[in-house]
Amino acid sequence: MFKKIGVLTGGGDAPGLNAVIRAAVRTAIGEFGLRCIGIEDSFEGILGETQLRKLTTKTVSGILPRGGTILGTRNKGSFCKIIDGKMVVPEMPIDEALRNLEQNKIEALIVIGGEGTLAIAEQFHLRGFPVVGVPKTIDNDLSATELTFGFRTAIDIATESLDRLHTTAASHDRVMILEVMGRNSGWIALEAGLAGSADVILIPEIPFSFDSIVKKVYEREKRGSLFTNIVVAEGATEVGKNEIYLDEEELRLGGVGDYVRMKIEDMTGKESRCVVLGHLQRGGSPNAFDRMLGTNFGACAVRALVTGERGKMVALRAGRVVTVPLADAIANVKSVNPDGQLVRTARDIGISFAAPDEEDH
Amino acid sequence: MFKKIGVLTGGGDAPGLNAVIRAAVRTAIGEFGLRCIGIEDSFEGILGETQLRKLTTKTVSGILPRGGTILGTRNKGSFCKIIDGKMVVPEMPIDEALRNLEQNKIEALIVIGGEGTLAIAEQFHLRGFPVVGVPKTIDNDLSATELTFGFRTAIDIATESLDRLHTTAASHDRVMILEVMGRNSGWIALEAGLAGSADVILIPEIPFSFDSIVKKVYEREKRGSLFTNIVVAEGATEVGKNEIYLDEEELRLGGVGDYVRMKIEDMTGKESRCVVLGHLQRGGSPNAFDRMLGTNFGACAVRALVTGERGKMVALRAGRVVTVPLADAIANVKSVNPDGQLVRTARDIGISFAAPDEEDH
Amino acid sequence: MFKKIGVLTGGGDAPGLNAVIRAAVRTAIGEFGLRCIGIEDSFEGILGETQLRKLTTKTVSGILPRGGTILGTRNKGSFCKIIDGKMVVPEMPIDEALRNLEQNKIEALIVIGGEGTLAIAEQFHLRGFPVVGVPKTIDNDLSATELTFGFRTAIDIATESLDRLHTTAASHDRVMILEVMGRNSGWIALEAGLAGSADVILIPEIPFSFDSIVKKVYEREKRGSLFTNIVVAEGATEVGKNEIYLDEEELRLGGVGDYVRMKIEDMTGKESRCVVLGHLQRGGSPNAFDRMLGTNFGACAVRALVTGERGKMVALRAGRVVTVPLADAIANVKSVNPDGQLVRTARDIGISFAAPDEEDH
Amino acid sequence: MFKKIGVLTGGGDAPGLNAVIRAAVRTAIGEFGLRCIGIEDSFEGILGETQLRKLTTKTVSGILPRGGTILGTRNKGSFCKIIDGKMVVPEMPIDEALRNLEQNKIEALIVIGGEGTLAIAEQFHLRGFPVVGVPKTIDNDLSATELTFGFRTAIDIATESLDRLHTTAASHDRVMILEVMGRNSGWIALEAGLAGSADVILIPEIPFSFDSIVKKVYEREKRGSLFTNIVVAEGATEVGKNEIYLDEEELRLGGVGDYVRMKIEDMTGKESRCVVLGHLQRGGSPNAFDRMLGTNFGACAVRALVTGERGKMVALRAGRVVTVPLADAIANVKSVNPDGQLVRTARDIGISFAAPDEEDH
Repeated sequence: MFKKIGVLTGGGDAPGLNAVIRAAVRTAIGEFGLRCIGIEDSFEGILGETQLRKLTTKTVSGILPRGGTILGTRNKGSFCKIIDGKMVVPEMPIDEALRNLEQNKIEALIVIGGEGTLAIAEQFHLRGFPVVGVPKTIDNDLSATELTFGFRTAIDIATESLDRLHTTAASHDRVMILEVMGRNSGWIALEAGLAGSADVILIPEIPFSFDSIVKKVYEREKRGSLFTNIVVAEGATEVGKNEIYLDEEELRLGGVGDYVRMKIEDMTGKESRCVVLGHLQRGGSPNAFDRMLGTNFGACAVRALVTGERGKMVALRAGRVVTVPLADAIANVKSVNPDGQLVRTARDIGISFAAPDEEDH
Repeated sequence: MFKKIGVLTGGGDAPGLNAVIRAAVRTAIGEFGLRCIGIEDSFEGILGETQLRKLTTKTVSGILPRGGTILGTRNKGSFCKIIDGKMVVPEMPIDEALRNLEQNKIEALIVIGGEGTLAIAEQFHLRGFPVVGVPKTIDNDLSATELTFGFRTAIDIATESLDRLHTTAASHDRVMILEVMGRNSGWIALEAGLAGSADVILIPEIPFSFDSIVKKVYEREKRGSLFTNIVVAEGATEVGKNEIYLDEEELRLGGVGDYVRMKIEDMTGKESRCVVLGHLQRGGSPNAFDRMLGTNFGACAVRALVTGERGKMVALRAGRVVTVPLADAIANVKSVNPDGQLVRTARDIGISFAAPDEEDH
Repeated sequence: MFKKIGVLTGGGDAPGLNAVIRAAVRTAIGEFGLRCIGIEDSFEGILGETQLRKLTTKTVSGILPRGGTILGTRNKGSFCKIIDGKMVVPEMPIDEALRNLEQNKIEALIVIGGEGTLAIAEQFHLRGFPVVGVPKTIDNDLSATELTFGFRTAIDIATESLDRLHTTAASHDRVMILEVMGRNSGWIALEAGLAGSADVILIPEIPFSFDSIVKKVYEREKRGSLFTNIVVAEGATEVGKNEIYLDEEELRLGGVGDYVRMKIEDMTGKESRCVVLGHLQRGGSPNAFDRMLGTNFGACAVRALVTGERGKMVALRAGRVVTVPLADAIANVKSVNPDGQLVRTARDIGISFAAPDEEDH
Repeated sequence: MFKKIGVLTGGGDAPGLNAVIRAAVRTAIGEFGLRCIGIEDSFEGILGETQLRKLTTKTVSGILPRGGTILGTRNKGSFCKIIDGKMVVPEMPIDEALRNLEQNKIEALIVIGGEGTLAIAEQFHLRGFPVVGVPKTIDNDLSATELTFGFRTAIDIATESLDRLHTTAASHDRVMILEVMGRNSGWIALEAGLAGSADVILIPEIPFSFDSIVKKVYEREKRGSLFTNIVVAEGATEVGKNEIYLDEEELRLGGVGDYVRMKIEDMTGKESRCVVLGHLQRGGSPNAFDRMLGTNFGACAVRALVTGERGKMVALRAGRVVTVPLADAIANVKSVNPDGQLVRTARDIGISFAAPDEEDH
């Protein structure tokens, strides 16, 4: 049995990180009598001059509703890289880290983070150091778990933004475009689009054609709806193109949202506006679900560690938190199935994905 | 294949009803070329002088973010009753209803409602009338489906309320009590309590003792937390009592929340306050998840009807909408498992359920 | 010039208290180089065993969006009483308090509170101790200042609640009643009623008759609106009665909201429901306006103290923060003018105040 | 006395437009027995083929909480221009409009709009046509009225966004920049910055220097705050420059927010991120205050029209709605006073405006 464990958060922040930290600390101290050390700024905190601080029930008091992470974080930075499509961690000074952990009598780690952070966590496991991971991806694109915290909060924010843009679009007879997160997968765009009454949803999994978007705009006009709402994932691409940017002219644009705006304005002559939601999706107070999921992840991760599970991470499966191998975190991306139920429902209610061959609705 | 279908909503309102209606109408008209009739005020609309109105894509435009139901509803009222613990519908004038449906050339029904409403729907099915149900219970206590729309919105509201009461409790060193819905099951109290940082959660599934609540209050005082937050489901009961009300004196109280407030104030001398959330949980705009789930339910229900399924209702299982027999809707209540994962997590992070034998945390 | 000042908060909590504390501390330290002491639990903190703590820029970091008060508070309690309609402070042990302040080298006070708290503050001033007050009343019923912080947040919450109840009322053809704060004045009920689309507003300044309410309910029915929304201030009374409660039967009721519900249900036979908003109005994060007003009050109070003003409190007049005598805080209540512009506007758009002679609209 | 009046909305949408329309219609019909005609798409609706529709109490039912305008709107477009710094309307075909109004028996107009729209309204007045205006500017930069509807909702949204960015900034040790509306005046940036805990506020009225921003960033680092939050009005400019864009390189940037981000990242090496709030500020449900102010404006405008006032607009002065000459709407912009109370308070609590000579706080 351990006496002292460490907790760290890595990668981009997501609403619910503090819920995980709080639950892990309260479970470790209150249920198992362990001591807890917070490691600051991801793995940086156990390298060089360590940045460690004692975590107590009092330290984590009041943090449940707060966004961000009280431990600080770093984006994947220099330790891990994608080589040949795989996440590897060639440059993590793991010996130094293990030495520092030992010096500080930290006997096990709860590591909360995304693909890169968990890949490093596995290195610790492979060296025999006890570690349990908690998956974090605001895009919800990890196939090992049905849901990750932060995702539903991001959808709430995107949906509220679509609600706001909707009234402006209708009042001004405009095309309004909202660019949301999702470099590799379109979950946020799809679910927010369904919830926020979008007319067109553009996602990485279904390459779009501008002709198809324009067809939808005109179809709506014919029926008396002089405005169109489009939600686009940042990773959506035009059919037949690997990247969205084409030439110098377009290089001036900020992203796919602006590109779509410009093209649609050119092709239809209609006033178009784009809003890039950006960091507004990541920050701020988690919604009730993400607080609960984060809490359950945090408590279950400590229970797993204490009951002897190693090299595992917690995951949600069929509504229950279970543990799966850490290696699964680095496995395939969970993509939107273009023939799946949600896309089918979206199409049935008249939403277009602007695929070239898309049937009219 | 049908030409004209009817849609109705029955029972208490829940956020997301309009999402179901909208998706059903858009799918029926846009995808399958059917005509849609809205039946007003639950089954009342097909009795006596019928209250029917044509539903078009335009009629359902803009209703996705709105609470309530544009079709109106009635609580179970006089048609169905619970006899020997079973929901029966002795008094529904089904012949009259079938006659009216035929006269208006309505060939099938989408029935959105709870236990009572779906029990009536099954009577139509047993008489050979095509019907597909959509389950609705804001308490999420239907075992046939993992989730129902409206439930997560109710939790959001309860959690936000707990956030509000928290700061007042802490500023005034008070015991604050929030009474939430849940006559037979404690799901809202449990999930909101986890998300809203409650110290004590009282649910029907775990009878509570006042001594145990008081122990928690004093335990917190010893640690320097001079306030305590309690969330209580309306159906929670004291150990060894079938009902909460004891004598004339207590009959003056409004519900279990006020009863707990009075008792705790008596037993501890601490200022205590109670808020009964009541109808604030039912109304208002559905959150993004409930809009999406309602939309998926509505579209899938029409698809089921069109593809020939009969006497079924839609249900969420392992994250997918499937169909199950309507009779399942009237089966056992889905209760919180006192030994389940969520209760375990709540206890691990120090939340008390005030069971008589509860260990201190 | 002072070296060290104290800050305290008294009376019921209101959203924005922490904004005042934060601005006062930052101004005192950053702009004037003073030291700041937080006095806990209102004046209790300078009596008996004092409860004092150093306030620094770091201590007040992150508190701007939080409800409640980090210093704790006490309701007026035993020190001050209303005698012959005037607030007096017969029992404040002022000598002891002054001694404790001197021992702790606190040379001046910023006192944030309502009528009672500011009446005590004036006693310190009359004894020659430098003090500047900041007015606090969530009811906004202080004639000395156009607005107090917390009031607009309470209206936001009440309005959002009316929005929620509205959809339920309409779906179920019900009379819905929301009871809001306002024992002596109807500001919250009036402004929330206007913003939240109430049909009837009941306030202390305009005694109501049940016949008049019922007339409105029937009038609406005739026009096809089968539901009615009523907002009632907790201090509203029936015409010709000093108090709302009449006999034993009615003593069982919780407040005026429930009383109105019962009567209307009796008189009209319509389903009626009541929600008492209670403490949900006081707690939680202040809205943007209250944060700004609290910040401006806090900074201006310290500037006033440093520039030599004594026995004053800050107040909002014509959009600017000015200083007025502390004695003004204890002057007349600011009531809703029954012949004023807002009531006129409410009547013009068809809202009833249920006065016995009220014209139909 | 009139029998029939028209209502139109012009310029960019702002939360509260529907509140004005609803109150005007209800007052005109319910209080004065007039008939109401909605004119669609601003003045376009009374030119060429007119777009008119009858407005009834039922038409405006349920629109109070909704953003946008049910009448549609057009930005100033081609009718009015700024010539020599004055708003003129050389190209409004006023004869045609008057003819169309007469043909449709519309005897007076309620015109809701900004500077340009009200300038056109005055042309109608000068031709003897009865008109009363309702001012609309989300930037709140109209000197004739203390407040306009929509402004406080925009501040709420900007403040909530600052709250969200704050936690991300703190977790990642970043500089976060939020660009808000305000081409000519910095009111939104100033008030949201105060309410949202900004460290630096950049407004058109106080030209900024990058050295001064950087000084603030380093000052904060020295004190242990490794992040900085900046809110910038879209019209803020660097000292000594008329426009923000300097050369080809910078032309690629979207606005001042991105420009500040790039420069700060260059000068400090710190990770910086920018979010442009854009249309999210305009759309969506108005907050309680804007619903109330819009309602009061709408009712008072109709009362003014009926009681014979001509060529006036409603305005808020000292908390009351009064009428002022329409010509005042086209008068000076209301700017933030760099030496005024709010700026003073902001500086006292340590906020920098990045003026070149700014004292450290």
